Amino acid sequence: MNVYVYGVGTTSFGKHPDVPLAKLAEDAVLEALLDAGPGAIEAAYVGTVFGPFGSGQRALRRLGLLGIPIVNVENACASGSTAFHEAFWSIRTGRFKRVLALGLEHLTSRFDGPIAPEATDAEGRSGLSLPALYAMSAARYMACHGLTDRQLAAVTVKNRQHASTNERAQFRTPVTLEQVLSSPMIADPLTLLQCCPLSDGAAAAVLGARRDNPRDVAVLSCVLRSGHLWDYRSKHVWGQDLVSTTAAQAYKHAGITPDEIDVLEVHDAFTIGEIVTLEALGLAALGEGGRLAESGVTALGGTHPVNPSGGLISRGHPLGATGLAQLAEIVGQLRGDQSTRQVQNARIGLVETMGGGVSGIDGNACVITVLSGAAQ
Amino acid sequence: MNVYVYGVGTTSFGKHPDVPLAKLAEDAVLEALLDAGPGAIEAAYVGTVFGPFGSGQRALRRLGLLGIPIVNVENACASGSTAFHEAFWSIRTGRFKRVLALGLEHLTSRFDGPIAPEATDAEGRSGLSLPALYAMSAARYMACHGLTDRQLAAVTVKNRQHASTNERAQFRTPVTLEQVLSSPMIADPLTLLQCCPLSDGAAAAVLGARRDNPRDVAVLSCVLRSGHLWDYRSKHVWGQDLVSTTAAQAYKHAGITPDEIDVLEVHDAFTIGEIVTLEALGLAALGEGGRLAESGVTALGGTHPVNPSGGLISRGHPLGATGLAQLAEIVGQLRGDQSTRQVQNARIGLVETMGGGVSGIDGNACVITVLSGAAQ
Repeated sequence: MNVYVYGVGTTSFGKHPDVPLAKLAEDAVLEALLDAGPGAIEAAYVGTVFGPFGSGQRALRRLGLLGIPIVNVENACASGSTAFHEAFWSIRTGRFKRVLALGLEHLTSRFDGPIAPEATDAEGRSGLSLPALYAMSAARYMACHGLTDRQLAAVTVKNRQHASTNERAQFRTPVTLEQVLSSPMIADPLTLLQCCPLSDGAAAAVLGARRDNPRDVAVLSCVLRSGHLWDYRSKHVWGQDLVSTTAAQAYKHAGITPDEIDVLEVHDAFTIGEIVTLEALGLAALGEGGRLAESGVTALGGTHPVNPSGGLISRGHPLGATGLAQLAEIVGQLRGDQSTRQVQNARIGLVETMGGGVSGIDGNACVITVLSGAAQ
Repeated sequence: MNVYVYGVGTTSFGKHPDVPLAKLAEDAVLEALLDAGPGAIEAAYVGTVFGPFGSGQRALRRLGLLGIPIVNVENACASGSTAFHEAFWSIRTGRFKRVLALGLEHLTSRFDGPIAPEATDAEGRSGLSLPALYAMSAARYMACHGLTDRQLAAVTVKNRQHASTNERAQFRTPVTLEQVLSSPMIADPLTLLQCCPLSDGAAAAVLGARRDNPRDVAVLSCVLRSGHLWDYRSKHVWGQDLVSTTAAQAYKHAGITPDEIDVLEVHDAFTIGEIVTLEALGLAALGEGGRLAESGVTALGGTHPVNPSGGLISRGHPLGATGLAQLAEIVGQLRGDQSTRQVQNARIGLVETMGGGVSGIDGNACVITVLSGAAQ
């Protein structure tokens, strides 16, 4: 079966300590249902990392979306994309005709400050938290490829600029290179403004098996992989091998090459993430990714606009919701709906989400989705 | 595609505060892999409620089961059965040929006493925890149908007796009706010995698309549903409608009637659960379920043996692992492997798991699986 996205919906992203998680989810789902138009939802896949047990059921009960199979899924930061992936395959294989994918997270009710490592996470408790893992990647990448602090910081400058007209983004104020570089150091070389914030929010998509409407966006492929044990002999930094193997499969299933992609949302939880990911996706050669943001190639108006929504760094990173927030942005781009941040003539879009990383393993999950608008 | 269970594995169930969660999972997975025989695992679905994010990846990395799609799922107490359900459908639809389903939980590292309600769970915080929800069902059922305290307690007596020769069960000492009735009251009318314990453990199954071995057990159907908003006009107690609608679908897909079932594992988190579930499954008329345990019908040697493993009450209830522990018992029964607790000539088996319940909603998830041994 071919698979289409019929509708998407999101909340605004940011700190919403006084808005219950179920309310955020309902807002996103209602928007997606209205966008999709009428039709019975046959199943729902719901991604969250820190939501309470039964998060999907709690979110969907007031909407009357019960009695159907509801499966809550978790794959760290790729939980929302995993929900989408499961929904995609449930339609691709002919099991269902119309399915809801939902992602939700309410981090401000779980954490006062940064996300604390689990009690049983010895490496995290010893300091190898995710910011540290990304910082080590950045330091190694700088040593191997001559990446500069300014190139790293340029990713934030670009993504903040993109978010400036996204009214649902968490940070909409543009920043300068100097501001990024002089913000407090979190994990050398990553400064505060190079790290994604703690966010609350929800995002949803309705998928179906038949193109009913020219606004429906085709899902050409959706691939999920878990990382292998990280090979210390690899010349690549953490995450790069997992993204590139996942991308190879996604391109093959979609029948496209990287140069055909008009617009991308990728996992810039930290600035180095965007750089490494774009190389792994084949949009730059190894060691060349640092030049992309600096040169304007990945800015709106460039040849390969990346993170037009502002990315995780500026739109926000409500873990379980992130993948579907990325998806909503790309669906909007492929429909030509994104107004001031619209990429002209966008026909092929890509969403990449990286989930977690237990040290020693190269990512819990990477999900890559290739989409095509009606013009295709 | 037809779907078969190639192999199952479990840990022993009980309090294992000093055994890491990943070690429990590895033991269960290794046993299942050895039982299944050689063959590459193409994907894994992993159920847990309170495990850390990326539980599946953490559990599988030391076994080298990485690089494949791994999806962690959560559906309250039906998380393990949901993992099995997702694995089943991934084979049924032809997506994969060989898949691992794993359930795991380490409650002793998360809770000192009973599972505390979430901070945002207003009903739970007000006292409507799961024991209270089941107790209200029991009280209503007693008022409507004349169920007696002794009939309720007989469920524990039977299941403890069953567990007495299950070396992996948490409680293996038989108890008398008097002991059950005189144990401390937890939520009237449910006494301590009528409530499942806090448990740690893991259980796994390997599923595949082709019968390779006469010991492979066929999965005739596997159905997952979420509950509807509970209808106060219903003459049934909490959970009953959800189990009966799920069962109707499972019987239809499997092409069987309830009287063909030779052996069952059902969700006796509390004694009333087994009684209500057996009625909902069609093994007794409404109001007649209370007589089953007392009369011996559901004991080993009776016409419909229920919970030969000892059930959640005696084998233990490590939430995410429970559904796959139930499945492992039934697979063993259909293979004729269960020695002193073997049901003679068992050809059709059923597993029923009930997941949670947010108040106002009739269960987060019910999963029912119908299996058939080689003799079938």
